[in-house]
Amino acid sequence: MMFQHDEPVLELTDEQSWKLLENTKHGRIVLTAAGETDIFPINYLAHDGRLLMRSAPGTKLAEVTINENVVFETDGIASDEAWSVVIKGTARVLQSGDEIEAAEKLGLKSWIPTLKDFYIELKPVQLSGRHFILGDQPER
Amino acid sequence: MMFQHDEPVLELTDEQSWKLLENTKHGRIVLTAAGETDIFPINYLAHDGRLLMRSAPGTKLAEVTINENVVFETDGIASDEAWSVVIKGTARVLQSGDEIEAAEKLGLKSWIPTLKDFYIELKPVQLSGRHFILGDQPER
Repeated sequence: MMFQHDEPVLELTDEQSWKLLENTKHGRIVLTAAGETDIFPINYLAHDGRLLMRSAPGTKLAEVTINENVVFETDGIASDEAWSVVIKGTARVLQSGDEIEAAEKLGLKSWIPTLKDFYIELKPVQLSGRHFILGDQPER
Repeated sequence: MMFQHDEPVLELTDEQSWKLLENTKHGRIVLTAAGETDIFPINYLAHDGRLLMRSAPGTKLAEVTINENVVFETDGIASDEAWSVVIKGTARVLQSGDEIEAAEKLGLKSWIPTLKDFYIELKPVQLSGRHFILGDQPER
């Protein structure tokens, strides 16, 4: 068990949530534009209190410029436990050469073998993490 | 490899997507209410072209009554491949005794050991599935 607790659900501290974020490589990003909500699986890298992702030009993901407010989720599940970390924050496409160079040095690998020309940075506004002990529903 | 294709991304047929949905037990549900987007990990059961989930009273999840339009995502990742299925649809809390009884007979297990008093049914309006071949970004 990653975290010990008696109740089925434990709210994680920010530190615990970041540890999970840093040790995970893929999650999902939720975008909302013109009343339409979309969710995309994505690989990412947690660094310096932010998430870094890559996107190909022309994908919906590159459209964070329409609405910068995004939600990100990553989770893990094992036989007897599960966890989930959710970030609400703002996403922006890295523009300056310096920023892009710094991002490239972090070595975020592309998930699928296509050209990914944009780096997207997600800056958290709100972070929440939960750990679940899995099991059967109690008898009433 | 679950699906053979040459390009990095394959759009799956509905049949392929349902097969993946039926063989997976957990995903994430995205709810939007009053301009706020939330995402929750959830276990589910795919049956008869719909998804069945359970929710405890008082959770945000039970608030699908505010906005029935939800997005659901489930995915899987292995060393060299990944897949993701997204459903956009309408969710409703099962109300009638007959419906609840039928749902109970399907044997959807609760994920965490708390009392879950509601059954939520997700009826797809739009289904999309993709399979990814993982690998390094091509040289330019």
